[in-house]
Amino acid sequence: MMLKNDLLLRAARGEKTERIPVWLMRQAGRILPEYRAVRASLSGFKELVETPERAAEVTLQPVDILGVDAAIIFSDILVVSEGMGLPYEMEEKKGPYFPKTIDQVQDIDRLRTGKAEDFHYTLDAIRITRKELNGRVPLIGFAGAPFTLLCYMVEGGGSKTFSKSKKLLFTEPEAAGKLLQKITDTTIAYLRGQVEAGADLLQVFDSWAGILSPQAYEKFSIPFLRQICEAFPDVPVTLFAKGAFYARKSLAALPCQVIGTDWNMPPEESRLLVGEKTLQGNLDPCVLYGSAKFITEETHAMIRAFGAQRYIANLGHGVYPDTDPMKVRHFVETVQQFDISTLQNR
Amino acid sequence: MMLKNDLLLRAARGEKTERIPVWLMRQAGRILPEYRAVRASLSGFKELVETPERAAEVTLQPVDILGVDAAIIFSDILVVSEGMGLPYEMEEKKGPYFPKTIDQVQDIDRLRTGKAEDFHYTLDAIRITRKELNGRVPLIGFAGAPFTLLCYMVEGGGSKTFSKSKKLLFTEPEAAGKLLQKITDTTIAYLRGQVEAGADLLQVFDSWAGILSPQAYEKFSIPFLRQICEAFPDVPVTLFAKGAFYARKSLAALPCQVIGTDWNMPPEESRLLVGEKTLQGNLDPCVLYGSAKFITEETHAMIRAFGAQRYIANLGHGVYPDTDPMKVRHFVETVQQFDISTLQNR
Repeated sequence: MMLKNDLLLRAARGEKTERIPVWLMRQAGRILPEYRAVRASLSGFKELVETPERAAEVTLQPVDILGVDAAIIFSDILVVSEGMGLPYEMEEKKGPYFPKTIDQVQDIDRLRTGKAEDFHYTLDAIRITRKELNGRVPLIGFAGAPFTLLCYMVEGGGSKTFSKSKKLLFTEPEAAGKLLQKITDTTIAYLRGQVEAGADLLQVFDSWAGILSPQAYEKFSIPFLRQICEAFPDVPVTLFAKGAFYARKSLAALPCQVIGTDWNMPPEESRLLVGEKTLQGNLDPCVLYGSAKFITEETHAMIRAFGAQRYIANLGHGVYPDTDPMKVRHFVETVQQFDISTLQNR
Repeated sequence: MMLKNDLLLRAARGEKTERIPVWLMRQAGRILPEYRAVRASLSGFKELVETPERAAEVTLQPVDILGVDAAIIFSDILVVSEGMGLPYEMEEKKGPYFPKTIDQVQDIDRLRTGKAEDFHYTLDAIRITRKELNGRVPLIGFAGAPFTLLCYMVEGGGSKTFSKSKKLLFTEPEAAGKLLQKITDTTIAYLRGQVEAGADLLQVFDSWAGILSPQAYEKFSIPFLRQICEAFPDVPVTLFAKGAFYARKSLAALPCQVIGTDWNMPPEESRLLVGEKTLQGNLDPCVLYGSAKFITEETHAMIRAFGAQRYIANLGHGVYPDTDPMKVRHFVETVQQFDISTLQNR
């Protein structure tokens, strides 16, 4: 199917674009009253993830309402651990948690390697979304990075120090490697299913990357991200390692197309570090609490710092649930209306 | 009083040292059974902070038990907000929280600027500690950075996104500036009291620095840290902005002597960024969960990366409460026994 708006894919591949594409992490979610209405009609977050028609519906909402240049399938990175035999729960306000966690090395042996069909609900949601999109914008598939999944599976939820996860890495590196490999194999099967179902681009979220040292990241995350990138030679892959400012160069050396950046990472510095690869990011989500004037100024400053080509505008993190959708629209329109001819030097 | 061991002060001032000084953030605390015994004999954390004899006692414990090259006064960064009229509570496991928070701009006007005598308990604890130390090692005084204090006072505790604090910064920058100035004035009065009571070096903890963009940090933290540094031309000051890898150069441009670094920040890169200033840090506290062999290897690698001079060994964050004190001792001894003549090139 020919895409009517393929800006995202062209930017990801490093091709010239006539304007900057823009989308937001977590754009399908609690910021939209239309999302909250769908959610309220179901028993909870997990039912929404596992009901393809409804997951597709909320995936499409931001395309219609916010006018973004890409859809991202509504799901959660934790479906992968569930497919491996470790189910998650999602509690309003508290966030995700695991009733069972990885507490000892033997727990790792008991986990299975998931197959694409374990995630049939997300793959079906992708097929429906793809049909409904009818080529309007590209559809992004995604998964969590193996290291981030390990953290959730060991901690059972978020953590201030992630000391349980890091204790595993530092005291049982072989067992940790085995767990990371199982997650990687499952993730590749899952992402392959997503591509076959119709995902145009894949993003891998290494949400907890920022808690590792550069050396530990090289050992416990990079090799597994490499395997994922190598499994998809024909699909653009975006790697977003939140907080891992120190890893931008290593990530860019992997066979991926786009490096995601958070608002701590100066765009000019990121350009130097990633070479010819495309960059994505990086507005502080809290900027969207400000006035329209403030949002315009900060967005323009961001664009000037990144330059107009090989660039996908986004926030540096998922949009926060209490953000006014009108402010999000303003951000999207500010990017889309930016006249890139004023940046001919980039 | 002449110090018998002034390694820390000489390293801070950039003078040559015959071996590398070492101490740990949060060394006076829950890792030591001796600390837990003192704590259990009192009603709680706050009583310990506010009882000078006992605060001095736990300050001295790590000098005696762990053999560190500095004492740091036992207290909490939140005493400053309490001195301004916003008391904190400390709950076991949950951490600190504020029953009242800054919810609107008018709340800022109601805060007072604290004076040194508001913190008499900590100043008395410093006097007692100083006497008991009898010149064995230097005594470090400390405070939180104004930006970090603002976050606590607005959020009422920790936060995943700090969106309330950043909403204040981005929508009411003038009011935020007023609050930051009040905190700065109080902090300078408090730190001046600490120096007069006998603190040999001051450390300022900007614990939440990592949630700001480089531009926001320049606006909302750097100017206030500058005032603090300028108020102490004769005392070495250490600035530790956790997570603010992007700010190392700006911090080093302030009239401070030492830049603290966390384990995300590569030592060689930090050297390039801070010029002639002394560096402190940066072992991942979770390394201390590993075997003695692993700790030795990681500590040696850290020292080789920093070099032997203008360097104070430490963790990249406070030591975690569930760390085995024997492992901490092993870390301290590994640094102290390191033969710096093997690093003559640095």
